[in-house]
Amino acid sequence: MEFHFLDRFQHMAPPAGGDVLKMASAPGVIPFSAGNPSAETFSLKEMEQVTKNLFAQKGAAALFQYGVSEGYGPLREFLQNRMKSKHGTGRESDRLMITSGGQQVIDLFTRLMVNPGDAVIVEEPTFMGALNTFRSAGARIVPVPMEQDGMDLNRLEQVLQEEKQIKFIYVITTFQNPTGFSTTMEKRRAIYQLAQKYDVMILEDNPYFELRISGEYLPPLKSLDEEGRVIFAGSLSKILSPGVRLGYAQAHEDVIARMTALKQAEDVHSNLFFQAVAAEYFARYDLDAHIAACTALYKEKRDRMLSLLEKNLPEGVTFSRPEGGLFVWLQLPEGLDGSALAARCAQNKVAVVPGAAFLADGTQVSAGVRLNYSTPSHEQIDEGVEILARCVREIMG
Amino acid sequence: MEFHFLDRFQHMAPPAGGDVLKMASAPGVIPFSAGNPSAETFSLKEMEQVTKNLFAQKGAAALFQYGVSEGYGPLREFLQNRMKSKHGTGRESDRLMITSGGQQVIDLFTRLMVNPGDAVIVEEPTFMGALNTFRSAGARIVPVPMEQDGMDLNRLEQVLQEEKQIKFIYVITTFQNPTGFSTTMEKRRAIYQLAQKYDVMILEDNPYFELRISGEYLPPLKSLDEEGRVIFAGSLSKILSPGVRLGYAQAHEDVIARMTALKQAEDVHSNLFFQAVAAEYFARYDLDAHIAACTALYKEKRDRMLSLLEKNLPEGVTFSRPEGGLFVWLQLPEGLDGSALAARCAQNKVAVVPGAAFLADGTQVSAGVRLNYSTPSHEQIDEGVEILARCVREIMG
Repeated sequence: MEFHFLDRFQHMAPPAGGDVLKMASAPGVIPFSAGNPSAETFSLKEMEQVTKNLFAQKGAAALFQYGVSEGYGPLREFLQNRMKSKHGTGRESDRLMITSGGQQVIDLFTRLMVNPGDAVIVEEPTFMGALNTFRSAGARIVPVPMEQDGMDLNRLEQVLQEEKQIKFIYVITTFQNPTGFSTTMEKRRAIYQLAQKYDVMILEDNPYFELRISGEYLPPLKSLDEEGRVIFAGSLSKILSPGVRLGYAQAHEDVIARMTALKQAEDVHSNLFFQAVAAEYFARYDLDAHIAACTALYKEKRDRMLSLLEKNLPEGVTFSRPEGGLFVWLQLPEGLDGSALAARCAQNKVAVVPGAAFLADGTQVSAGVRLNYSTPSHEQIDEGVEILARCVREIMG
Repeated sequence: MEFHFLDRFQHMAPPAGGDVLKMASAPGVIPFSAGNPSAETFSLKEMEQVTKNLFAQKGAAALFQYGVSEGYGPLREFLQNRMKSKHGTGRESDRLMITSGGQQVIDLFTRLMVNPGDAVIVEEPTFMGALNTFRSAGARIVPVPMEQDGMDLNRLEQVLQEEKQIKFIYVITTFQNPTGFSTTMEKRRAIYQLAQKYDVMILEDNPYFELRISGEYLPPLKSLDEEGRVIFAGSLSKILSPGVRLGYAQAHEDVIARMTALKQAEDVHSNLFFQAVAAEYFARYDLDAHIAACTALYKEKRDRMLSLLEKNLPEGVTFSRPEGGLFVWLQLPEGLDGSALAARCAQNKVAVVPGAAFLADGTQVSAGVRLNYSTPSHEQIDEGVEILARCVREIMG
């Protein structure tokens, strides 16, 4: 029979993450394409202990029963307190809800706001998972170039003036995916002021901000928000585990109330047992010490990759020098195609993600590719950068 | 500031499940309002053992990393095989994916199919979670009366003739929520033939069908499907645990491909560790024996509730005699209001769900209320039915 899916799903990209995962995990392939944290950062021993304790406690059965859509109380409280006291986000009228990863925050908020044809402003390049969510809602995706210090503000204002039905600005403020760039405080303030001026909301996706390796701490854009204009999307994927699928939204109570109602219609609630595991883990262990151990590991890998890129890449090729997160953005001289480089790398068993995957219009050419340093081993970084540099020279002729 | 949510979310009901949960779990309240399985049916000891083994295995870290959106391979295979060999569903072109509960199957399929204004045909009364999902997509919900043996077929055909832009028929074929009624094989076939005749799809929600207490086994409507017209929504909530949020869709490969792409944009994948727990639990223990133990427990509770209703209720009040599942549907004489009965019961510390919650238009009056027998203890059933019967007599004057 013929299926009559909505038009926008006829053109929706197949699960790119799945393909990337499959390719990166093929035997012998060097996984510079990964988007995940290093498995070395998972606190398996501690989670095992916490799990054991939870099963042993008197009320264990309650963790297997239905829970409330806004999430497990102790986890919500821990995150709300941490965000407020450590990162300065959350006013009197703000609330926090638990989601199935940061991805679900993007999805729920988009569904609340976007009719087919409405506009969403994004940094370009930006996270492909968010682009797919916006596509699934039928949004017009309006790109604004991402610069080393954040969005191009002139272009942002121009777009705010010209476009109709703009629903929100989507920004990844710290250690952006895919570029590794962070938006400066000055630009965070400017973006917030522009959002006020043109009365649009801001979806701040900030899954990596706790993974700072070097440089000055930058509070979330949400910390500037006095009126409920900013929805903060947080994630436990990079500080606990991606596989357990836990994230959170911090936003005005009216926004959280709608997102909670929609979450109930979407999946009722997130895995309750692992919400309790996370809450117990955070209560019993020192999260900041854990994060410090993660970033120490990532510092070695990042420094290794950056110094090898510096040494091996030919002139004319640029790359970002991220102060944290998981990604380096490599850019070929103008006119060259990152997809060609990615294909050549793949032939030589190095997986990288072509920049086109991060464009609003994925059929356009990008001179960039995204490199991940959290997943490969030191040996893979050494070997991979050497192969990559050879491929770059070949592409550049 | 003023928030500009889409119109359809201005009128979306607050999380009813949450309210129901909170009321039913208040101290001293008899929880006839619950929609959950009995905590006595959770295999805590076995899940604890499986969990311990998973942490001890060599590849444990992989269960905390990102997984693929279609779900954990061994769990998909187990469910696909079980559905095929035991229940006769799944042709060559059908595939199975893992979701975050049966609710997410309803959500994903609805998002693929329904533009605001499109029609979805439902049994009336029907599951309020599905109604909220349809509302979140802006669907026109077209009700067809639910009878003791399934939908009113004359009305169904009339609606299929008259309505425009019908996307699918939503049916809960076995031990329906809230009525406890099951659709006979004859009506399953008739519904399938009508769906063919008018070229609409069928979303078969079937979370309770494994919980048969008595009567003749009914294969899923999906087992009749040769062409990919039926999407089967399955759930592990009632045979393993609702809190771990696992369900599955079985459907044509083209449908599963789109649902998988959309799931990636919605939440990437479901909790991976508990997908592995479920797969290991099913591999190591006898699921049919576990289900037999569950239904033996439920038989005692159901029989107790039905015989007390029989004994205590005044003439003119009817109630369903379900052969399984979790619910009994009680109906007052025509003209009386189930919401008034529910309110009176609540004053007397018995929680029941008013029938209006299960109507396409929730502002209409329903003479019914839903009773749950899986959660209350024997003592609570005894005391609760007595109070309920007294309230019924008061309502009837």
